[in-house]
This record gives sequence, structure tokens and C-alpha cells, in this order.
Amino acid sequence: MKSDLDNLMAARGLDALIAYANEVYSPPVDYLSNGARVTRAMIIKRRGGEPIFVVNAMEVEEAAKSGLKVYTESELGLADLVKELGGDREKAQPVFLERCLRKAGVDGGTIGIYGVVEFGFLLALTRRFEQEFPQYHFAAEMGLNSLSLFDEAYTTKDDDEITRMRSVAARTSQVLQAAWDFIASHTADGERVIDDSGEALTIGAVKRFVRRTLLDYDLEDTDMIFAQGRDGGFPHSRGEDDTELRLGQAIVFDLFPREIGGGYFHDCTRTWSLGYAAPEVQEAYDQVMDAFDIAVEVFRPGIAAKALQDAVHDYFESKGHATPRSHPGTNTGLVHSIGHGLGLNIHERPSISHISRDTLQRGNVFSIEPGLYYPERGFGIRVEDTVVVNQHGELVALTDFPKTLVLPLNSAG
Amino acid sequence: MKSDLDNLMAARGLDALIAYANEVYSPPVDYLSNGARVTRAMIIKRRGGEPIFVVNAMEVEEAAKSGLKVYTESELGLADLVKELGGDREKAQPVFLERCLRKAGVDGGTIGIYGVVEFGFLLALTRRFEQEFPQYHFAAEMGLNSLSLFDEAYTTKDDDEITRMRSVAARTSQVLQAAWDFIASHTADGERVIDDSGEALTIGAVKRFVRRTLLDYDLEDTDMIFAQGRDGGFPHSRGEDDTELRLGQAIVFDLFPREIGGGYFHDCTRTWSLGYAAPEVQEAYDQVMDAFDIAVEVFRPGIAAKALQDAVHDYFESKGHATPRSHPGTNTGLVHSIGHGLGLNIHERPSISHISRDTLQRGNVFSIEPGLYYPERGFGIRVEDTVVVNQHGELVALTDFPKTLVLPLNSAG
Repeated sequence: MKSDLDNLMAARGLDALIAYANEVYSPPVDYLSNGARVTRAMIIKRRGGEPIFVVNAMEVEEAAKSGLKVYTESELGLADLVKELGGDREKAQPVFLERCLRKAGVDGGTIGIYGVVEFGFLLALTRRFEQEFPQYHFAAEMGLNSLSLFDEAYTTKDDDEITRMRSVAARTSQVLQAAWDFIASHTADGERVIDDSGEALTIGAVKRFVRRTLLDYDLEDTDMIFAQGRDGGFPHSRGEDDTELRLGQAIVFDLFPREIGGGYFHDCTRTWSLGYAAPEVQEAYDQVMDAFDIAVEVFRPGIAAKALQDAVHDYFESKGHATPRSHPGTNTGLVHSIGHGLGLNIHERPSISHISRDTLQRGNVFSIEPGLYYPERGFGIRVEDTVVVNQHGELVALTDFPKTLVLPLNSAG
Repeated sequence: MKSDLDNLMAARGLDALIAYANEVYSPPVDYLSNGARVTRAMIIKRRGGEPIFVVNAMEVEEAAKSGLKVYTESELGLADLVKELGGDREKAQPVFLERCLRKAGVDGGTIGIYGVVEFGFLLALTRRFEQEFPQYHFAAEMGLNSLSLFDEAYTTKDDDEITRMRSVAARTSQVLQAAWDFIASHTADGERVIDDSGEALTIGAVKRFVRRTLLDYDLEDTDMIFAQGRDGGFPHSRGEDDTELRLGQAIVFDLFPREIGGGYFHDCTRTWSLGYAAPEVQEAYDQVMDAFDIAVEVFRPGIAAKALQDAVHDYFESKGHATPRSHPGTNTGLVHSIGHGLGLNIHERPSISHISRDTLQRGNVFSIEPGLYYPERGFGIRVEDTVVVNQHGELVALTDFPKTLVLPLNSAG
């Protein structure tokens, strides 16, 4: 968690870290700035020191909300520097960066650099900086075998973060209920689903309803999945807006909204079949529910994340399904890992897969999401809750919505 | 434009380029994939060759919509590679990347690398790659003095892009009208603004209305500014949700929505004063409108972007206002550059500032947005349209909404 940063830096031999943002939402800057909404910014933290926040003068009021010490680029002389250098803005960048580092009490050493940015720009800047200021070295972490600094910090949420994620979860669950009620207010007409005026209900209409309802709860959609029948058999197919809803088709509804404008995510999936469920869908659904329960039962604090995935693999394989372990790269059966951490990013650590080296600890918030996919048979199924490991080491669901396959409709006439 | 890519690569000595996406929206991948919605992807294009699209197996259906040749990571053997390397996923990455490059017909040379990603990961990968495969070299462009490859491609929109941006503009203009009508449906009660039930209208309520209305037009808010009075005097203050609207306060309403889920932006600003305008606000508003007209009049195809900013500086300085030229880093008067290109990114080239080296060409889409800021006097003003330079070299507004300062309300009683 955030209070561990100095220790995490020490463990990686970092004398300082830089978090960058430039035009796009950058979780490390959100994290360190306590949610300040700035579009171009740099936060520099010396190990053991307080972070400084360098922003454009236009954003000084927003930046001040962070509680950090704020400097504007003009205070630190960026414009003057560009002028001195005859308008060469590229030459000015590394010189300015070094000036900012010294302002944060850093005059050399190993520096971690983080942030979601356009890669080319920052690669060019860091290369040039290291050439001109060889007393500094940027450390880079791939973070696939072990956890990178921010991954490790993110992975244990503090109480404030869990409170916020609990709120996002509760609101998302309300939206699931509203979506269920919205669809249930429609009428079955043969295999079609129609509204009061006889118009067919489309996926586009459902998505529009959900997006609007999310806004009512100060949440924003980040490209939900609402995929019916064969489309639902491809885990990341989002569903086509002009597709009409049909009875008896499995619909994978994966909703992963975020606090508006950037912030914490929630992640949940329900599979619904309108009116009735086909027997093979019901059978697969029951197995996915069993797999979900197995993952929850296997859990104990400190367990290898892999153990949950393996238990689900054992079960699905015993039922004759392919898994990533039995059939690497499979497109049918279970085709993905059954969970992942989330927070300011939709995918964080721990990663729950059969090749994961992560363990599951107090303060982790992650998804559990087994599924079965048979596009050629016309369906996919996934059920997902976001859960937290609380201070007592218990696994507690944040998602609060029933897992019911069949969504009943009104009958025509 | 996109059809120039081979020439743009040749001009930079690039033998190939890579566009990366990993979990967050990456404009270069959107651009090259014709809008495919993938969360983790790599597009590799050899100069003179067709791009290949490498994605996770789960996203193969979405990727296929690009029209590009698609390979899955498993087809190219990523999972096997990790297995062979004893589960070392970090060691597998550069080997896999080299395999992908060869698949795209690239076996060495200079490679441009682009995309909005978490910086640390890709820095680590590219460093390791260059060590292990010294026949390759990654080129990095800062793109501040001259234009980076994608900046240059983006800056001239082709007809398809302009058609899409025209549509986004028309829809955004409808939303401005709806927001105007929504506010105008309220009643003045002294200096307060109330609804039928006597409740005060807040900025939060206006923003919620606007976000919902955007969704009706398949647009998404990307953190609009609706800032009243002193707050509007800080160009990037977004406005506080619980602030109640007041008569006679200048409200800076900067709306820059995007096609839902990623795509083209529009950017427009209006300044509104409810009920009446204070004389000093009206005077400043008239000057901002004059500045806007001056920028439009100075324009001709091929002109230096700087000339527009300079003309506005000349005018504002003649009226006694500080500008970035007369007072670098100023917090009052004109405090920002008066325009920027936009497209898949909210800020693209050309950049219109007094230090810009860009020129204004056919196919450019950019904002014109002079403003005046006096937080200590309790107001800020900005007026902004997005414009296109059409094939005849004419400057044509895409934003289609009147520039009217005073928004009349109903009177109480």
C-alpha cells in the first residue's frame, strides 16, 4: 500500500521515483496525488522524502488538492530555459527534468520511472537525459516474474481504498439490478424480445440504458461486454449494437465501470438467458457456478493464486473441458485465467492463473471469474465477482447481486 | 494521413514500426487497426509491407474487424516459449517480440515504437531486446521540435476521418444546445437558479445532464470543464459539483467528448452568464470574440501557426492584457496557446502557440480558443470552435453552435 513506498523503493535499490502523466489518465499519478485531476504532471519522490508535484501553471488549483508540494513549470523556469536554448524544446526537457529532480532533493542515483504515457516521447527523453546526466540511471521493471513497484503497492489496498471500492461495488450492483429490471420489463414475442410499442430490444439499447444508469451512480462505462449466443463464446467480444435479444440465448454481461474521470474499478459478470435456458447452457452454467464455489473454498490467506486456478482446472478437466493447462491456447472450454487484481487499473496483481507466482494476501482485491466457451455450440458462460481479502484473512464478496441464469420476461398477449 | 506512413517512415530512416497497446486505449493501435477494440495488441509494419496484428486469442474476433492479417500470441508460440524457459515470462518477451518482427518480414534495422502504455514495462522490454538482438535498434522521437511519425500522420486527416469528426462535431453541438435549454428551463430567484421544486441548480446536476445527453449521441465525456466565476479564471479547473449556479457569473463550459470507447474527439468552449452579464465580463467577452475573429481572419493555408497566436497577442496586448509572449508564465490575461490539433487525441499537432514551428495545412483539424483569465476579479472567459482546413484551403468551423454570452432564465413569480 501507499505507506509502503519507501520500503518498496529500498527493496529495488531506487533512490527516487518519477510518476509521469501527459494527456492521458495515468494511475501512478492518480495514486500519488490522491486523485488530483491534472493532464500533464510529474511527481518526484526521493526515497524517504516527500513527493513534489510539477504541473503546468494552468493546473495549479487542481494540483493543490493533492496535498503535495506543488511547483509550476514556469516557477521552475521551463519557458525561460526554452528561450535560452533558442527555442529548442527537446534540448530543454532533460535539463528541466534534472532541475526538478534536484528540487525534490535528488542529485543522482537510480530512479524508477512509471506512468501511462505515449512511449516514444518518454523513451527519447530518458535516453537523452541519461547521456547528458550520467550520474543518474533509470531503472526499468518488466514486472512479469516479480511485481514492479507500483504493482506491489497497488496489490494491498489500504482502508480508504477498500472503502472506495466497496462503494463502487455497491453502486455497480445497483446498476446490474436496474439492467435486469429493464430487460424484465420487456415482453417475449415468440423468441423475440419487444417493448410496449412492439420494437425489438437490441444490445445497443441495453448498453445505452446501462451507460446512463452508471452515470446516475457517478460511474462510467469502460466498454462493457454484453454478448449473446455465439458472440458470448469469445470472451472479449463486446456484442454488436444492432443484435436483437433472443430468448434462450446465453448472454455474457461483463460490467467493469470506474469512478467517473478516473479512479477505482469494479468488475463483475453475470450470464443471463432470457425466458428459459437451453439444457446444455444450464448444464455448463451449473459447472461454472461449481467452479466459482471451488475457487472460493480453496482460498485461504497466503495461498498461491495458482492453487485456485489449478482447482478449477481439475474440476473442469474432470468434466471433459479443455483448460489453458490441458490445452494451451485453447479456444473452447475454459480459455482464460480465473481472476486478477483490480483497483485504479482494471487488471492488477495478483494474477490468478496456472503460471502465476503470486500469493493471495490481506488487502488484495481481485476478481474470481471462471467461464466456459463454446462458440461453435453457440454459447459462452462467465460468472464473476470482485472480492476482497479482509483484515481477518476472510474472502468477502464486494459484488452484491444474485447469480441467476434465467431472466423471466412478460408473456405476450 | 494514414496513406503517407511509408513515406513518413522513410523520412525517419525507419525500417519498421511497432504500435503497442496494453490495457489502456492506445491511439496508434486504433489508427492502424481501423478502430478494432483490443486490450492487448501489437501492430508491426515493415516499411512498404502490410501491417500484422498480434493479439491474445480471446480477442481474435475483434481484431479481425481491422482487416489486417491477425496472429494470436498462441499461434506464434508465446505460451510454449514461456514453458521452454521454465516459466520465465520476462525472458520470453524479447524472444517473442523478435519472432513477431520476423513474421512481419523484419529481421533487423531501425524500428520506431509507439503507443500509450505503462512506461516501465516497455522500457524494460526494449532495453532487454536491444541487448539480446543487437541487429535491431529502437528509434525514439521526442516530437517537440519536429513532428514524430504519428503526430505527422495524424495532422492531415483523410476524408473518412473528417467525415467522422464532422459527425462528432454535429452531435456535440446538439448537446450544447440541450445544455443551454436545460439551464434556460430553470428560474431566477434573486441571484439563485432554481428548478420547479425550488431546488438550486448545481454544477454537478448540469454535468450529469450533459454526460447523459452525450450518451444519447453515442459520445462520452472525457472530464468536461464547467467552471463558474473565480474557478473559471483557472483554465483547467473543472468546477465543483456542489457549486450552485448564480446569475451574472461567467461560466466557462469546455466540452471535449469522444466517440464512445475511444475514437475521435471534438473540442468546443462557450462562456455563458446566466440572466445578465457584468459589464467587465461583457467587455472581456467582446475582446475574446474579437480575438477569435482575428485568428480566423489571419488564417490562410500554409501560414505559420504562430502567426495566429501572434495576432491574438498583438490584439490582447494592445488592450492591456498580459500574454504568454509579454509575460511568460502569466496567470492573468491570456494564459495559454490559442489552439491545437485534435483527432484520436485531444491534443495533437499543429500546435498554435507563439513558439510553435508548425504550419497550417489542408486536412488539419484544430481548435481556436482565445481566452482571458482574471481569477482575482472573479472570472475567466474562453470561446472555442474546432475547425477544419478543407481541400480548397478554406477554414470551416465544425462546431455549429451560437456564441452568445447571456443565457436568459425564467423570472420567478
